Amino acid sequence: MKVRVGFGFDVHALVSGRELWLGGVKLEHEKGLQGHSDADVLLHAVCDALLGAANMRDIGFHFPDTAGEYKNIDSKILLSRTIELVRSKGYELGNMDITVCAERPKLNPHIPAMKKAMAEVMKVDEEDISIKATTTEKLGFTGREEGISAYATVLITKE
Amino acid sequence: MKVRVGFGFDVHALVSGRELWLGGVKLEHEKGLQGHSDADVLLHAVCDALLGAANMRDIGFHFPDTAGEYKNIDSKILLSRTIELVRSKGYELGNMDITVCAERPKLNPHIPAMKKAMAEVMKVDEEDISIKATTTEKLGFTGREEGISAYATVLITKE
Amino acid sequence: MKVRVGFGFDVHALVSGRELWLGGVKLEHEKGLQGHSDADVLLHAVCDALLGAANMRDIGFHFPDTAGEYKNIDSKILLSRTIELVRSKGYELGNMDITVCAERPKLNPHIPAMKKAMAEVMKVDEEDISIKATTTEKLGFTGREEGISAYATVLITKE
Ligand SMILES: [Zn+2]
Ligand SMILES: [Zn+2]
Ligand SMILES: [Zn+2]
Repeated sequence: MKVRVGFGFDVHALVSGRELWLGGVKLEHEKGLQGHSDADVLLHAVCDALLGAANMRDIGFHFPDTAGEYKNIDSKILLSRTIELVRSKGYELGNMDITVCAERPKLNPHIPAMKKAMAEVMKVDEEDISIKATTTEKLGFTGREEGISAYATVLITKE
Repeated sequence: MKVRVGFGFDVHALVSGRELWLGGVKLEHEKGLQGHSDADVLLHAVCDALLGAANMRDIGFHFPDTAGEYKNIDSKILLSRTIELVRSKGYELGNMDITVCAERPKLNPHIPAMKKAMAEVMKVDEEDISIKATTTEKLGFTGREEGISAYATVLITKE
Repeated sequence: MKVRVGFGFDVHALVSGRELWLGGVKLEHEKGLQGHSDADVLLHAVCDALLGAANMRDIGFHFPDTAGEYKNIDSKILLSRTIELVRSKGYELGNMDITVCAERPKLNPHIPAMKKAMAEVMKVDEEDISIKATTTEKLGFTGREEGISAYATVLITKE
């Protein structure tokens, strides 16, 4: 069995007048993430980690933010296409572990819903998706609530 | 053999009047890390990476900072319980690689002691624990010595 | 087959009057990265990830910035020596996935040249080197163009 690792890191700014989407789920919050798509920073980090593991460039290469078709698009569609790309090279998800840095809102109550949504989109077992939320103790741009960042580590396998 | 990867990231603020614990070792420094436990940011990143790899939530889920029993607790106790949780699912540590971002104090002289302490707590080989220290070149909150951050990557295996 | 993972993170400040080297390639930009060597933050993150995976300390341990011989050195030489160190312990590269955070310049057009340069230095297949570039949406020190950071994740194997 061949195994490969990938890592994704993404950041979006928190602004008024936008919905907050994280892990494919819409959260109640007074601000949302700015971006061309729905700006789901968690799913973007996952897409980049999967593409990096398979050596297939990155999310911006496949879904350019200059393309009208991706304007405000649900990032679950990007995740679905990403896992198809990875599978087209013969790889399957081993597992993924994601860390979201956000001072607010509290993410822990929503993690089961995020895992369910992502498992359905990728057609994988929820057991292979781990999501963790942390604050940066009011430090840095995530601590000042200027933005939210996400790290994703993935392992993919080929028989 | 099944292999899984995990990733942990943790941040704590540097404040006066606290001891500085890193990697299970007490360091001499004019400030320490703020937190409910001893705030050992290195061990917390490791716990989160281990739990993430095993899909067992995160350190805050198992050891909530609202629980009096964890007040100022030695994080080596949390690490010990974490590795037990991971082993209870049939996994064993493959290896871990940790990066601590701190402008000061110099951490390199203390890395052998940290590795020894962690190996004893987890009952693993020191060969499977790598710790690296870096500065962020005076940039960002770690560069301004407002806090210390730690990244941990782990690989766990099941026969 | 034994597999191990490693992770590297590096930061250098952007300053006037220095060349900008990334991934072993010189880029046109009005600023460059400050450091004792050529300050190639991407290659440094890779060296640290490789050394961490093999439990061989870090780049500062092997190539100290107090040593005159490393003054302004081409980091490709450090990468070449690093992969030799890793191979001396019987490990071979599985794959690596790198993320560079830089607001400017645009890195995507240069990624093929970086991969080619790195594959030649390490004597590995370009298929096993993934490089991704991202901005931090004008947030934090990379967003303010005070510096550039790089994350590298690697998997190494031993038969
Ligand atoms: Zn994004
Ligand atoms: Zn902590
Ligand atoms: Zn460096």
